[in-house]
Amino acid sequence: MTTTSLRLYPDRLFPADERTRAVARRLHASVADLPIISPHSHVPAQWIAEDISFDDPAALLITPDHYVTRLMHANGVPLHELGVGQGRLDEPAARRAFAHLCEHWADFRGTPVRYWLENQFVEMFGITEKPSRESADRLYDTIAAWLADPANSARRLMERFDIAVLATTDAPCDDLTHHAALRSDGSFTRRVVPTFRPDKYLEAAHPGWASLVQRLGETSGVPVDDLPGFLAALQDRRAYFQQHGAVSADHSHADLGTTRLDEDEANRLYQLGLSGSITTEQATALRRHLVWHQVRMACEDGLTMTLHPAVARDHHRPSFERYGADIGADIPISVEVTRALQPALESFGTHPNLTLVLFTLDETVFSREIAPLAGFYPSVYAGVPWWFLDAPDAIKRYRRAVTETAGFTRTSGFIDDTRAFCSIPTRHDMSRRLDACHLADLVVEHRLDEDEALETIHSLVVDNPRKVFQL
Amino acid sequence: MTTTSLRLYPDRLFPADERTRAVARRLHASVADLPIISPHSHVPAQWIAEDISFDDPAALLITPDHYVTRLMHANGVPLHELGVGQGRLDEPAARRAFAHLCEHWADFRGTPVRYWLENQFVEMFGITEKPSRESADRLYDTIAAWLADPANSARRLMERFDIAVLATTDAPCDDLTHHAALRSDGSFTRRVVPTFRPDKYLEAAHPGWASLVQRLGETSGVPVDDLPGFLAALQDRRAYFQQHGAVSADHSHADLGTTRLDEDEANRLYQLGLSGSITTEQATALRRHLVWHQVRMACEDGLTMTLHPAVARDHHRPSFERYGADIGADIPISVEVTRALQPALESFGTHPNLTLVLFTLDETVFSREIAPLAGFYPSVYAGVPWWFLDAPDAIKRYRRAVTETAGFTRTSGFIDDTRAFCSIPTRHDMSRRLDACHLADLVVEHRLDEDEALETIHSLVVDNPRKVFQL
Amino acid sequence: MTTTSLRLYPDRLFPADERTRAVARRLHASVADLPIISPHSHVPAQWIAEDISFDDPAALLITPDHYVTRLMHANGVPLHELGVGQGRLDEPAARRAFAHLCEHWADFRGTPVRYWLENQFVEMFGITEKPSRESADRLYDTIAAWLADPANSARRLMERFDIAVLATTDAPCDDLTHHAALRSDGSFTRRVVPTFRPDKYLEAAHPGWASLVQRLGETSGVPVDDLPGFLAALQDRRAYFQQHGAVSADHSHADLGTTRLDEDEANRLYQLGLSGSITTEQATALRRHLVWHQVRMACEDGLTMTLHPAVARDHHRPSFERYGADIGADIPISVEVTRALQPALESFGTHPNLTLVLFTLDETVFSREIAPLAGFYPSVYAGVPWWFLDAPDAIKRYRRAVTETAGFTRTSGFIDDTRAFCSIPTRHDMSRRLDACHLADLVVEHRLDEDEALETIHSLVVDNPRKVFQL
Repeated sequence: MTTTSLRLYPDRLFPADERTRAVARRLHASVADLPIISPHSHVPAQWIAEDISFDDPAALLITPDHYVTRLMHANGVPLHELGVGQGRLDEPAARRAFAHLCEHWADFRGTPVRYWLENQFVEMFGITEKPSRESADRLYDTIAAWLADPANSARRLMERFDIAVLATTDAPCDDLTHHAALRSDGSFTRRVVPTFRPDKYLEAAHPGWASLVQRLGETSGVPVDDLPGFLAALQDRRAYFQQHGAVSADHSHADLGTTRLDEDEANRLYQLGLSGSITTEQATALRRHLVWHQVRMACEDGLTMTLHPAVARDHHRPSFERYGADIGADIPISVEVTRALQPALESFGTHPNLTLVLFTLDETVFSREIAPLAGFYPSVYAGVPWWFLDAPDAIKRYRRAVTETAGFTRTSGFIDDTRAFCSIPTRHDMSRRLDACHLADLVVEHRLDEDEALETIHSLVVDNPRKVFQL
Repeated sequence: MTTTSLRLYPDRLFPADERTRAVARRLHASVADLPIISPHSHVPAQWIAEDISFDDPAALLITPDHYVTRLMHANGVPLHELGVGQGRLDEPAARRAFAHLCEHWADFRGTPVRYWLENQFVEMFGITEKPSRESADRLYDTIAAWLADPANSARRLMERFDIAVLATTDAPCDDLTHHAALRSDGSFTRRVVPTFRPDKYLEAAHPGWASLVQRLGETSGVPVDDLPGFLAALQDRRAYFQQHGAVSADHSHADLGTTRLDEDEANRLYQLGLSGSITTEQATALRRHLVWHQVRMACEDGLTMTLHPAVARDHHRPSFERYGADIGADIPISVEVTRALQPALESFGTHPNLTLVLFTLDETVFSREIAPLAGFYPSVYAGVPWWFLDAPDAIKRYRRAVTETAGFTRTSGFIDDTRAFCSIPTRHDMSRRLDACHLADLVVEHRLDEDEALETIHSLVVDNPRKVFQL
Repeated sequence: MTTTSLRLYPDRLFPADERTRAVARRLHASVADLPIISPHSHVPAQWIAEDISFDDPAALLITPDHYVTRLMHANGVPLHELGVGQGRLDEPAARRAFAHLCEHWADFRGTPVRYWLENQFVEMFGITEKPSRESADRLYDTIAAWLADPANSARRLMERFDIAVLATTDAPCDDLTHHAALRSDGSFTRRVVPTFRPDKYLEAAHPGWASLVQRLGETSGVPVDDLPGFLAALQDRRAYFQQHGAVSADHSHADLGTTRLDEDEANRLYQLGLSGSITTEQATALRRHLVWHQVRMACEDGLTMTLHPAVARDHHRPSFERYGADIGADIPISVEVTRALQPALESFGTHPNLTLVLFTLDETVFSREIAPLAGFYPSVYAGVPWWFLDAPDAIKRYRRAVTETAGFTRTSGFIDDTRAFCSIPTRHDMSRRLDACHLADLVVEHRLDEDEALETIHSLVVDNPRKVFQL
């Protein structure tokens, strides 16, 4: 029989050794209250612009968060029972989804989801009992009441969470009206910026690509009947994003290839794409060429470029057909960095205007390729752990794998990459705690003085993201 | 000069930090005396059925165990000196083999072989002095006397070790007579079940494949002159195995491919295989198609499917030609999981009857592919470390790599995978100790309450293997 | 504000846990004063033969050491500002280069470069204040004065560092005159041996290959107009190196392939190479064939063979064109060992005369391929971490990844692989400290007795390098 009370320990995540723990505690305390900089998230700008209140506990904590739904699915709960693909849930359905989470609470032991939820339950909702089949309805009521309080609207939370900067992720043809509204609203002092994410526009073999291109042409007003026009149209949209505050462009493809084609050959492939007769291989070659051009544009307009490669999206087609994308069925694959980026880095690796942040779900490249690249090229930064790796042990492995070759200055600062809005504070706090752990180890092993560690953790929280994302 | 006494410390394998060690000690104590469930081993059923006594210390501890012989071979001892490929040894030869082990005792420092042997020496044989050239004959005598005691026959040991379930590994045409004898023997209360292992039947380019197929046809009574017949014959043998208590089928090929062919094309390749004119590439394509069908059959008959991929078998051909297979010359290679399993998982990944356990010797796929798959698909489980990785540090890395994405419920429970019969208790105990270490870390870092850790370690020892292997 | 004093802690690198630290301290103390064996370095023999004094602090510590320059380059300092490719620096330029290092001191936090420099600053130069913009000139003066002291010439330092053996790295046509001078100098009691490094001679598609071959023919006096002649010429140079004390040959190619070609086909490719019409693929096939022959020759002449594969050399072509090779722009790639070495190991893996040391920058192969190979083949040793991995955390990962499968006896002993002469003592001391940490963990976890650990660390420092490099 397990205890039923839920509580947070001030020393959570800190190492067992007392001396090291004491150092970690001091390091963490020095940055615990600093504002949050979130240069890569999936929170919709609309939430902030319209200052929404969240519908219900399931809509807040479960349905949109594939971290949460995927592990329940693995443990036998159908996705529709969790609200996935069901539109807005009525109260019984929302309660049922929430009850599933409570009943499956033990399945999350040892995962960061458990950690994040526990933190939110205690710190945000004031819950003091553990989720369980028995407590599910009481917890639902507590959270629902919290959500109904106007003090907990999206903007009020953004203030309370002390989020200084929040970058959303946006499609190239988005008109960014919500971002514009926020910028022109004098009463809103936080910074919400868009991120240019053109993935689908660079994949000429994907169904619907030609109509995306057509829309790009219409939105930009630039004729896209040949590749130079297409590139000019993309550049136009990048400029539009910059005018609306964007500081970065994000790219996620199956590999990191940047091989440049002859421009005439590239245009030929582009035309094949428009006519729907491009092969997969040709489309891959064209995409790598287009990514090279995105690096070129980044040198020209200065948008930081983040790369999130190597995920097999929608791995289970039947689930994709039933529920759509982003349901937790994206599975990582291995990635190659050194050779793939060489063409772009030969062209632009020492360009003073380029900032390239390399993320990975394949941990093997941290020490083998990313840290060595970030330790030579002034344009390259080692992105912090992302997605499946944004968890305590993986984050510790990352620091151990990257620091010895690239130091701390060549890393990106934390990104939360989430649409789970209320988890943002605990995610950033987790990152600060873990950086404190790593630095405390260095201090106790006499590899760093404690005052240097204090400076370093401050840089990791403040300076690195500001520098890397030009904030 | 090293000490000459041999002893076991109650806290062995537990972490240095006293507070963490205390938690680990309590967690381990709670499961230390639970029965052993061994759902994947290489102990021959004949040993139990005939209640054999072991020949001599070399035959018990050295000759059949490639973990032991390979490292001595690397350190300069020819395999024949260890009895490999020599048939039953006379006493001088057995003493010589055992003396080699004692003289090479230092070469095993830091390896699990040293740990397992030390445990057996002290706990089983009551030995109190270290193996060395000087002590070799005394130790030999002690173990030989122990072996001669009828109280140490295979069945008596199985009782004493408290092995509740033992799964053997068996060829599809085996008549399972020993399993049948054990099941019909009312005096024997332990459960010994066969495992269906059809590897060789799925590799159409291997020499002797056609005669294996012929034997399969004869044994099953199903005509195998075309592929549907062959598949029906395999299904017949799976049923035969299930009637004899089998709960799983085991598969070990160079990759995890499950790409399905057009059935006519597959049958064409099958015919090429029978006529001896299939190419290696064609045989690989056919094998992947056949593995897809094994997944299909697993959905139909419910046998758990374990996958042990990516070993270059018999790496050193001259040794293979002299000594045969399974001599320690199998060397791991890298493996790809996400793409390889996609065809089978698209077809059957959410089938309620499917249980798929993924083992690997390539640690890189734990966090990158296996945990993400096990954290989405209800059919997929992350197999615990196997073979070269069934060692303390590797097991700790496994829990750290898998848990954050897949939790504890999506892991298989321990398998010993051994033919070293007397090492089974210490192998399972090692696993329990290491799970206690991992959970103790989580407790001390306030990522889990101790009562939850107690529940979890009980599940890892009892519930997970029972669920995954349907025991 | 950070402290400004610089000091070394006696317990640096030791683990936090007091009990473990105490064991590590004792283990380290037992080997701290043993002579240095450096069987693979990049120190030029000329330095020792001519007993040079170093020019200035930049020439000693910065310009030639790409570990140091690459991270400053990443942090925005152009390489020429650090003296790279500038020839001998005048004093203002040397001071400026040194000032860059001091100003960028914080960028090295957490890296081994910081650790090595700190050790040299304190122990060698007696510096007690931290490098900074403010202290740069004072530190420069201190080091410059130290360099001007004749007591700090190369030979005097070699005595003071107690370097028993130093292996240099040399081109096949080098006349080894400096080595000869040292051997015939009765006043010099240390051993300086050459290493045969024929990389460029095995890459037939590289520009200038044909003229290298011609030079090889002239130097050896063996006609090289066909492949047998070329091989005989190489063998002749290997013999010449052995006569001058060489104990090993070093090989660094993009992969580890050893596939043997038909000799006639190989000769055809060789002729294509000489005529400049060989393709990249053909040259790769020829190189793998030639490496197979290097293994054969190693069996015949007994030179230990070290393999340092899988680096993308000169990754940034513009920097290569401006500054040349070895400037920190070499980036690792993944490597495959099991299949690549199989042809050579099938031929020679159990040959009594062969010693093959496998290094890697791809950590994934430590547990997956290298340890399993070293744990079976008597000829194969797991090389210690090299280059980007010669750092505290990576070295700890190496011992954890390799020991459980291969033990300690199948590892190479430390190599420093450096041209940073004054860093040699601290690099070897770091290795001894880290081996002490690993062994202390084993002792405290009751996996090894402390007297065994004492024996083991002595072997790692003395016996393993002597055995592996036949010293």
